[in-house]
Amino acid sequence: MTATSSYGALTNQGASTNIAWHHTSVDRDARAQQRGHRSAILWFTGLSGAGKSTLANAVNSALFEQGLSCYVLDGDNVRHGLCADLGFSDADREENIRRIGEVAKLFLDAGVVVLTAFVSPFRADRRRARALVEAGDFIEIHCAADLTVCEQRDTKGLYAKARAGEIKDFTGISSPYEMPEHPELRVDTGSQSLEESVQQVLTYLISQGVIPQAS
Amino acid sequence: MTATSSYGALTNQGASTNIAWHHTSVDRDARAQQRGHRSAILWFTGLSGAGKSTLANAVNSALFEQGLSCYVLDGDNVRHGLCADLGFSDADREENIRRIGEVAKLFLDAGVVVLTAFVSPFRADRRRARALVEAGDFIEIHCAADLTVCEQRDTKGLYAKARAGEIKDFTGISSPYEMPEHPELRVDTGSQSLEESVQQVLTYLISQGVIPQAS
Repeated sequence: MTATSSYGALTNQGASTNIAWHHTSVDRDARAQQRGHRSAILWFTGLSGAGKSTLANAVNSALFEQGLSCYVLDGDNVRHGLCADLGFSDADREENIRRIGEVAKLFLDAGVVVLTAFVSPFRADRRRARALVEAGDFIEIHCAADLTVCEQRDTKGLYAKARAGEIKDFTGISSPYEMPEHPELRVDTGSQSLEESVQQVLTYLISQGVIPQAS
Repeated sequence: MTATSSYGALTNQGASTNIAWHHTSVDRDARAQQRGHRSAILWFTGLSGAGKSTLANAVNSALFEQGLSCYVLDGDNVRHGLCADLGFSDADREENIRRIGEVAKLFLDAGVVVLTAFVSPFRADRRRARALVEAGDFIEIHCAADLTVCEQRDTKGLYAKARAGEIKDFTGISSPYEMPEHPELRVDTGSQSLEESVQQVLTYLISQGVIPQAS
């Protein structure tokens, strides 16, 4: 066979090389088998201050310490990069969540447990993100702290600004939060401890066969 | 401490739990240390038919078989998903490459060797993608098959259509391909075998300390 033709059809015939490479089909199953865990999208949703990012990062740390492939997508790494061109209009918010859903799907395909931490207040947007992947791959986790608790925490001072009218269309104050009706998991981030919440998520992932029981 | 306050500052104090979790800062260094390899963006560029996707997938297989974290971004998983809203106007092509650069940066941050396989014909676009990350993290790989060779292969029948005027602004025919002037690697995908090309890329990655020597 000619050298050129090997670009048409993958083949390992021809010149001997020292490449350890046998045309593995690197798909999700192969990755799961190698890593010892499935991939999944953990979609954290809830009000600002409900603890989405904190919980997602804590779960991420726990997964990492078990040696699992995991990654958090949140405002810090998405809003100023991939979605830097988007503002806060209805159309832009929808596009923001659409892109996050698509990127999460890529990480899923790459064998990574990907944790997304965005308010994502609208059911339709969350439903679209869920519809991108197979049943079981999308795990919606409602961080269910009450508005009162979130506003009292006001970790970023955003509620005060929203009440003062300095932020328009702020979820929970001047824009609706559409509660998940049947999330895979509802976590009471308003009253239970972070440790309890992390354990609740891990227990669910183990029960669904996403991750193995920690040894 | 109260349960609520643990969402303000990550802490492991309080109720005893069975969570193996110690607030690891899961950054690129931690991931590299755990996985035994650095992450990097391998940015394959070249004419349609030059073998970008074939080479990227073959390198990906080789990395996977060494147990490394790796993933290919190409037309198959990006154009119909994240970039499904984009057409082929100049502005849309630029936005397409911008998003791919941003997603590649996320995978880089996630500790993954990410291989992008897109024509990416314009220097300015490639320069912008490179500028998103630190020096050394962006490895531009020019798949340098001549137009003659690519057109002769015409694996997807696109050159015939472009010559017939059925595809507008086709790179190499009716739209320019701006050759990389100083790519980290130039691979002669026109005449050398796929095996040789894979080896060339792996040798480079080893020389740069991105991946370990295969055992």
